[in-house]
Amino acid sequence: MINEARETSTLIGSDKVEGTAVYGADGEKIGSIERVMIEKTTGRVSFAVLSFGGFLGFGDDHYPLPWSSLKYNVELGGYQTLIPIDRFERAPRYADDSEWDWASVDRRKGVNDYYGVVM
Amino acid sequence: MINEARETSTLIGSDKVEGTAVYGADGEKIGSIERVMIEKTTGRVSFAVLSFGGFLGFGDDHYPLPWSSLKYNVELGGYQTLIPIDRFERAPRYADDSEWDWASVDRRKGVNDYYGVVM
Repeated sequence: MINEARETSTLIGSDKVEGTAVYGADGEKIGSIERVMIEKTTGRVSFAVLSFGGFLGFGDDHYPLPWSSLKYNVELGGYQTLIPIDRFERAPRYADDSEWDWASVDRRKGVNDYYGVVM
Repeated sequence: MINEARETSTLIGSDKVEGTAVYGADGEKIGSIERVMIEKTTGRVSFAVLSFGGFLGFGDDHYPLPWSSLKYNVELGGYQTLIPIDRFERAPRYADDSEWDWASVDRRKGVNDYYGVVM
């Protein structure tokens, strides 16, 4: 029953988003969400961090994605992205949290630019 | 160093929000955030769940708050609310996740109404 308080058709708890599966355009699972990054002032989610968790040969790296590149798909029970898999091959990523500085505007802009999202 | 990837002056990771302290108007700690509730479609945080964790005689109940009632205070390193403490005495709350149904519009509206937030 604990899930009832963590997820409805319109709302999802932050601790439930973490670990939620991410599916590709074809509906195949490609990985899962590790965390989302929330703008402190507006309370808007601006990025999600995707881990392939070893799927598809992408290893354990962490891939920051613009939140707008993920859509919740009720049927799949997870987020779906239309980003083609091969787009991740040269995508911004980090192996270790200490390598990535979200405070860097260039880093944030780099992610949005790479996926064609206007900030 | 792990915190660097989880928090900056403008962004905070969902897993970092969970557990972040909440302070009252006078700057005294009143509790902490257990989770935030994110709107699936817009990616906007609409509610936070506050636990007093036994502080101030409020026990271990869970208090859903409109996100807009919390402001991040950089100096305090946590969220601050201007809701007077005695306002929590009769506030919407639940002891167990299974008692609370976020899918209920009345429940959500009830929280916003109680704290005077227009949906």
